[in-house]
Amino acid sequence: MQFNALVNGHTIVMDAPERVGGEDHGPIPKPFVLTALSGCTGMDIVAIMRKNGKQPDSFNIKVEGEISKQPPIEYVAMHITYEMEGNESDKDDAMNAVNISQEKYCGVSHMLKKIMPVTWDVMYNGHLIFTNKKEAVLAV
Amino acid sequence: MQFNALVNGHTIVMDAPERVGGEDHGPIPKPFVLTALSGCTGMDIVAIMRKNGKQPDSFNIKVEGEISKQPPIEYVAMHITYEMEGNESDKDDAMNAVNISQEKYCGVSHMLKKIMPVTWDVMYNGHLIFTNKKEAVLAV
Repeated sequence: MQFNALVNGHTIVMDAPERVGGEDHGPIPKPFVLTALSGCTGMDIVAIMRKNGKQPDSFNIKVEGEISKQPPIEYVAMHITYEMEGNESDKDDAMNAVNISQEKYCGVSHMLKKIMPVTWDVMYNGHLIFTNKKEAVLAV
Repeated sequence: MQFNALVNGHTIVMDAPERVGGEDHGPIPKPFVLTALSGCTGMDIVAIMRKNGKQPDSFNIKVEGEISKQPPIEYVAMHITYEMEGNESDKDDAMNAVNISQEKYCGVSHMLKKIMPVTWDVMYNGHLIFTNKKEAVLAV
């Protein structure tokens, strides 16, 4: 079940877990859609901040995909959590870079938004500074 | 610009090329959508053939993505070339497995078909046995 993907000069190993006949030598393929989204928007943000002479001290991106209940198993929603640490004075630049990526540059996000909700939270120095995730309404 | 993606327990390095400020330590993110598509349908096909006691001797999958001319740069069409080698008597099984993957199981393909044409060729022992790529009409 192992496939070695050659992606612009780099080899990426994909494999299936043992329970479906693979040997787990690499990730399963489907989450690479989430990987593409994280890298696309992440690199946008770093590039945009750099243009303004800024850079986060640390930058972590988590992408969660909700999958369909019936085959074909596909993503039906995605949620991104951007976690950045850096100077407090760079917070607005960081938020601005997220907006520019999401509204203008990130082709993977733009593509996915045509077929599913794509939402995001922005955490800066441990504080939530933005979210567009619709919260479930709690029945009281 | 380097991001290390943790994908079901495996680390995948993404990076940008040097001309845009990276160090080319890994693939750029966007083609991971193509990688996801190749692995998803490839593993389907191997699994389906195995259930029938078959296995290709070699199996290569090429996925080409056509990108938009304006930002956000996104895929607007994808074409898959399946290249399989194996027993001539397994040709119909191989073709059948491709059909089942494309029509029933491959969630990545199903997802992408909602927003762009996804077409495929099947080569078996060097011969084209199927294509659904619409050929350009040649003006005479």
